[in-house]
Amino acid sequence: MSPKSIRVCLSPALLPFHELDDTIAVVIDIFRATSSMCYGLANGAQAIIPVEELDECLSYQSNGHLLAAERDGQVVTGFDFGNSPFSYTKEKVAGKTVVLTTTNGTRAIKRCAGASAVVIGSFLNISTLSNWLKTQPQHILLVCAGWKNHFNLEDTVFAGALVHRLKTRDMELDDAAYAAESLYLEARSDLPTYLGKASHSKRMQHLHIAQDIAFCLQEDQVSVIPILKGRELVRLTLPHLLQ
Amino acid sequence: MSPKSIRVCLSPALLPFHELDDTIAVVIDIFRATSSMCYGLANGAQAIIPVEELDECLSYQSNGHLLAAERDGQVVTGFDFGNSPFSYTKEKVAGKTVVLTTTNGTRAIKRCAGASAVVIGSFLNISTLSNWLKTQPQHILLVCAGWKNHFNLEDTVFAGALVHRLKTRDMELDDAAYAAESLYLEARSDLPTYLGKASHSKRMQHLHIAQDIAFCLQEDQVSVIPILKGRELVRLTLPHLLQ
Repeated sequence: MSPKSIRVCLSPALLPFHELDDTIAVVIDIFRATSSMCYGLANGAQAIIPVEELDECLSYQSNGHLLAAERDGQVVTGFDFGNSPFSYTKEKVAGKTVVLTTTNGTRAIKRCAGASAVVIGSFLNISTLSNWLKTQPQHILLVCAGWKNHFNLEDTVFAGALVHRLKTRDMELDDAAYAAESLYLEARSDLPTYLGKASHSKRMQHLHIAQDIAFCLQEDQVSVIPILKGRELVRLTLPHLLQ
Repeated sequence: MSPKSIRVCLSPALLPFHELDDTIAVVIDIFRATSSMCYGLANGAQAIIPVEELDECLSYQSNGHLLAAERDGQVVTGFDFGNSPFSYTKEKVAGKTVVLTTTNGTRAIKRCAGASAVVIGSFLNISTLSNWLKTQPQHILLVCAGWKNHFNLEDTVFAGALVHRLKTRDMELDDAAYAAESLYLEARSDLPTYLGKASHSKRMQHLHIAQDIAFCLQEDQVSVIPILKGRELVRLTLPHLLQ
């Protein structure tokens, strides 16, 4: 069994032009939302609730949840933390539910709601994710969260890494999938240098989060796949998960 | 003098997120609208009027203009011709005004109306265009017409060719400009093969227009730059045009 087609949506603003029926949507926001989601669920967070707005995030305050909010790369004042993966360690999140709003990633997740399934991708869970996707018969749509509706390099290069692992001779790729794979093949020998020219990396240099970037570019640190169930991201469980 | 920044808009649907102030917009629809516009004006067409809808195109019938309409890669029944460059020869268009509506290209032009200038790019006029752009101080936005709001390879690879010719050390590139240049550098040794995998090429194979594709991939066949003046595309004239 293998997916029928692989397409890449290069910006959340292009989602309205993509078919979501019979499709697994993989949401990608490498720096840093989807990397932190994978890390947090691997470290025992019970669930992560992605919300679009700060107000909605705050409305969960009385539930005893951890509240995480990032805007323009920084933790929003008054929140427990933002989207740095180092805030999603076992010590901080095990057994907890995290309510998270970010500039790009959480919004992209919300807009994929019509898909058969919405899962979360990052370099941290790439092998577990791609092995599972290979067992699924649906179409696959790789959704790059980008930056404020703009294309970005890091999400597209990761989408290309997935295309490279998943594609077969019979599978239909759209032009964006071909392009993403080309970019990945060029970048893979030295991801940090290639992505160093990305606008987001430059933005993040000002924020002194080089450690976060290096962390998010490591393959296979975790073996979980976050999946959207209702409004919560939880760990996808067996029998679906073949590792 | 050189442009301050080069950005690439990968789909007309992303134009609302791009700044057009103090910006020259270069509209790109390689297969085939912008190639044919360059060729038609080089062959003496007086003007080409891009319109969005078939009805609007038909409304020019009484003016004695040539009416050209393409939808889904084919000439629309009842129109003089579509967007094949071979319909824009000297014999057919010299001294005439052509009113043209296409699936992607003419719509992209309309949406750039807020820019300082809107010009037309194709491989056919790449050197003339890039030499002129180098003399301009404005920002440059390369607008890929794509296919029905989707990313496509051929327009992006051409955008990358322009980035490669125009970029300087001091100039700011967005992530899409870096990606487009990467794709161009990979594709340039054999454009027809690289673009053969593009969805549009596959669509066009069904239409038996391999000759059109080969024609549109030739560099420097003409030395005109179509520029939007009011509602008409006309030849950019000296002293602006340094060849």
